[in-house]
Amino acid sequence: MLRAGVDLGGTKIQTVVVDPEGNVLGQCRLPTPQDLGPPGVLDAIVDSVRQSVADAGVAPGQLLGVGVGSPGQIDHDAGTVSHAGNLPDWLGTIEVAAPLRAALGVPIELANDVQVGVMAESRLGAGRPYSSMLGIFCGTGVGGGIVIHDELWLGRGAAGEVGHMVVEPDGAPCPCGRRGCLEAYAGRAAMEAEARHRIGKGKHSDLIKIMEKKGRTRMSSGVWAKALEKHDHLAVHLIDRAVWALGLAAASAVNLLDVEAVVIGGGLGTRLGPPFADRIREAMLPHLILPEKAPQVLSAALGDLGGAMGAALRVEHTVPPPGDLGAVADPDA
Amino acid sequence: MLRAGVDLGGTKIQTVVVDPEGNVLGQCRLPTPQDLGPPGVLDAIVDSVRQSVADAGVAPGQLLGVGVGSPGQIDHDAGTVSHAGNLPDWLGTIEVAAPLRAALGVPIELANDVQVGVMAESRLGAGRPYSSMLGIFCGTGVGGGIVIHDELWLGRGAAGEVGHMVVEPDGAPCPCGRRGCLEAYAGRAAMEAEARHRIGKGKHSDLIKIMEKKGRTRMSSGVWAKALEKHDHLAVHLIDRAVWALGLAAASAVNLLDVEAVVIGGGLGTRLGPPFADRIREAMLPHLILPEKAPQVLSAALGDLGGAMGAALRVEHTVPPPGDLGAVADPDA
Repeated sequence: MLRAGVDLGGTKIQTVVVDPEGNVLGQCRLPTPQDLGPPGVLDAIVDSVRQSVADAGVAPGQLLGVGVGSPGQIDHDAGTVSHAGNLPDWLGTIEVAAPLRAALGVPIELANDVQVGVMAESRLGAGRPYSSMLGIFCGTGVGGGIVIHDELWLGRGAAGEVGHMVVEPDGAPCPCGRRGCLEAYAGRAAMEAEARHRIGKGKHSDLIKIMEKKGRTRMSSGVWAKALEKHDHLAVHLIDRAVWALGLAAASAVNLLDVEAVVIGGGLGTRLGPPFADRIREAMLPHLILPEKAPQVLSAALGDLGGAMGAALRVEHTVPPPGDLGAVADPDA
Repeated sequence: MLRAGVDLGGTKIQTVVVDPEGNVLGQCRLPTPQDLGPPGVLDAIVDSVRQSVADAGVAPGQLLGVGVGSPGQIDHDAGTVSHAGNLPDWLGTIEVAAPLRAALGVPIELANDVQVGVMAESRLGAGRPYSSMLGIFCGTGVGGGIVIHDELWLGRGAAGEVGHMVVEPDGAPCPCGRRGCLEAYAGRAAMEAEARHRIGKGKHSDLIKIMEKKGRTRMSSGVWAKALEKHDHLAVHLIDRAVWALGLAAASAVNLLDVEAVVIGGGLGTRLGPPFADRIREAMLPHLILPEKAPQVLSAALGDLGGAMGAALRVEHTVPPPGDLGAVADPDA
């Protein structure tokens, strides 16, 4: 029985169709429509699921369900997504599960985008050999997740906010409105704001030129990677700063949790790859209480498909297994 | 069936005898012998167990076992304690379980002193209503423990080192040899070193006078409490600094773990009590990503007996239940 998973992001919608072993049979990547509001985004999700199902050579009816990993606040029972600032015009609370179910005719599972990405790395990716791990996902912001005994630890629903561990009291301004959080140093939005601020003050850098040449309006992970490749001083300095902050936060988290592995993912983490993970490990070591028992620090292994694969994994959580679908309830059970 | 628990510390040995519901039926507190080396410490443990058993009005043979919470590195299977710097002349690895078992005639369970203290607060103390909590124990150092799904999370054996979360990069020197750890601000050893350093540089303070009047050679929790009561400027400043650091570390840990409660214990935490916990909560709030869902911050409820009660709880872990004691093994089982 096949499952689809959707990674809903502010710039793209990535969808996969996977078999029970987690093999990707089909996929589709569409840009997130920027001018049509939530209905346009929902239509694009439906399109992307249909295209990946076609890519897999199957019919939508063969899907056990579709998992959707979304930013914002997820109300799983209501099937809604609220306050997803990264999604275009996504104000207030938007119904997601019901319209997708109506269009696709299969059960829909909503979950937090970072949590499903971490779970995918734990089950199918870099964290597979370990029963405990910390995922640190650097994208526009910095999210994360804790896996303990092979399961996500959600706390009261909001665990894993590694991006808001404080690495420097009264430090750099964070998009969350506070200061000195990890995200203030290692999230793309904060890094771009700092870069623009320094360029505005006369610091030389090719970051904006590279961005424009790539036809972007934002400093994407590819822009940072290109600038590093060209040894752009400002980019090198701001990535150094991100590595420093990631090492500090990872060390504090490891001293607290003593997990077997730290997996660095997200758009920026995936793009900068194993050398970035190695540098974070070096930055972490001096702050570990047991450096001789340092955990593995690994780059996420599933790349851009991780979020969608993790969303597909969610389908198993509440949908009855295939044999039970449509089974008559036994009143004596 | 009764159990005894021993809290082995550098200055005192606290023992309790508890019934299956955790009620304390007998107790004894002896000074830790300073001049007789490990054998003298072991003799004192035996004495304290015998005296608490007598205090409970029972015989040593009625004990299911004795749990010992100890500083240093515990090898549970070997029954040894290594590198317990707080214990007099405790160099290398010392056999603890075998000599105690020989003297008392009952099974001995060794465990980490902070871990048993946190577990006691979770099962019997301030953390009882919650299935997840973070314990922060401020004593000579700062230790801690994480309770998840009502069980201690030990990671690969060393989880809970909240005292070595970094609160200020390149900050105050920590007894661990690093800088800026929570313990560098909120552990008594580091606080005393800082106080003596500032007094040596001419800062006025009555901390040393109060210490000497109490007949102490170290600034115990009682010395700090007395100095606060007298509004000693240096003591007030250093406690303010400890509260600041505890609030920061608690916030980072809560953003990561989203636990229901934070329990402040240890000698200093217990002595300064609920007003200290309330101040830590206030210091934590500005750094929480979800301040509206702030966890409870509570003062440890079991006071000086918590460590010994937690050690007694350990007995259940590996000793067969009463009905199985002495039972003939069934070869068909």
